[in-house]
Amino acid sequence: MDAPASLSPTDRSTVRRGSRRARTDRADLHAVLDAGLIGHLGVELGGAPVVLPTGYGRSGDTLYLHGSTGAATLRAAGGGVPVCFTVTLLDGIVYARSAFHHSMNYRCAVVHGRARLVEDADERLLGLRVLTEHLAPGSWTATRLPDRKELAATAVLALDLTEASVKIRTGPPGDDERDLEGPEVADPVWAGVLPLRTVAGEPEPCPLLPGGAAVPARVRDRALSPSA
Amino acid sequence: MDAPASLSPTDRSTVRRGSRRARTDRADLHAVLDAGLIGHLGVELGGAPVVLPTGYGRSGDTLYLHGSTGAATLRAAGGGVPVCFTVTLLDGIVYARSAFHHSMNYRCAVVHGRARLVEDADERLLGLRVLTEHLAPGSWTATRLPDRKELAATAVLALDLTEASVKIRTGPPGDDERDLEGPEVADPVWAGVLPLRTVAGEPEPCPLLPGGAAVPARVRDRALSPSA
Repeated sequence: MDAPASLSPTDRSTVRRGSRRARTDRADLHAVLDAGLIGHLGVELGGAPVVLPTGYGRSGDTLYLHGSTGAATLRAAGGGVPVCFTVTLLDGIVYARSAFHHSMNYRCAVVHGRARLVEDADERLLGLRVLTEHLAPGSWTATRLPDRKELAATAVLALDLTEASVKIRTGPPGDDERDLEGPEVADPVWAGVLPLRTVAGEPEPCPLLPGGAAVPARVRDRALSPSA
Repeated sequence: MDAPASLSPTDRSTVRRGSRRARTDRADLHAVLDAGLIGHLGVELGGAPVVLPTGYGRSGDTLYLHGSTGAATLRAAGGGVPVCFTVTLLDGIVYARSAFHHSMNYRCAVVHGRARLVEDADERLLGLRVLTEHLAPGSWTATRLPDRKELAATAVLALDLTEASVKIRTGPPGDDERDLEGPEVADPVWAGVLPLRTVAGEPEPCPLLPGGAAVPARVRDRALSPSA
């Protein structure tokens, strides 16, 4: 875990557009990754980029991904080629007084690097544990762990978090001065933010579950991030 | 609008992993795109894939993207190179009786192609209109439209929806027979789905808005998709 405390050590992980929204603290990167549930993995396949959603887990400054050993994108990503992994949380819709200044409030982490196919048995289990616990906290200890056959069917990839950037937009619209209306205007164009968040509904028990099985606290009391 | 009614005309847009989750109806593609708010655009930049979140809009079988003319990824994407644009809606966390069968319920659309830099003035306005209306329905008519300077600073890209795939997972976990417990088990491992959805909070007026300005129906009554 010897990644530097600040981000943006490279050219491509330095935010250029809207750089006032850039965060350079590694803690911000961790916070965005920990708040999200899925990310989008980009890898070149047959001469074209492919972007697919996937779950993930984090241990320190290592991100773990997994999937079927038969998945083409995962096989490609595990082959040591450059990849990009992006997690975006949408926090609000920004209504402005002009179409041009409409925007979104969001938190976004972009990780660049080369994924490593994890082969060590202990690290594979660590990766699967943090993946499972990120998706469903408490499930690693409450459910049956992967057996040999399941492990053989699963590829685990590790992606170092050293080269990454974080961009966060918060707050009201950034309207032009000319579009602001004085207090005397009776019917001004409404501007502001419609905040968005992800919420969990009532847990839906599996139809094969014995009747009356109680929903455990790990599901019932699950605290979701403001947006995920 | 001469895209075929069914999807998957090419090898790379044919779903292979979990193909029982594939949808091949173009209406499913439109529905996923219309329900999402942001997508992730993948493009190669300097020999490595870059994946960035962006808003979008749809007109028939054309997807419109936009951004600053100074944004490197957008410039690259508009140069006629292959791109991938992916929209994912997370609908639930699937708790299984084994770690291996944990999953997510989701809807995902993946579009492959080459983006076209829109140069025709009318089509540029069309693109910006559907982008704005997708993000904030009603805003195109309620707010100031882009002026010449704003238009000059904005690149509009068009991406044809011909080559695309849709994958949707719904329903309970797909547990192994061996992990199911009979009705006599007093404390079975809970399995089921924790549904997720995106909700809007109270609109937050811009601090520069004259006091007491009413929140318009286009914001207040906005119907969000179940997940976005």
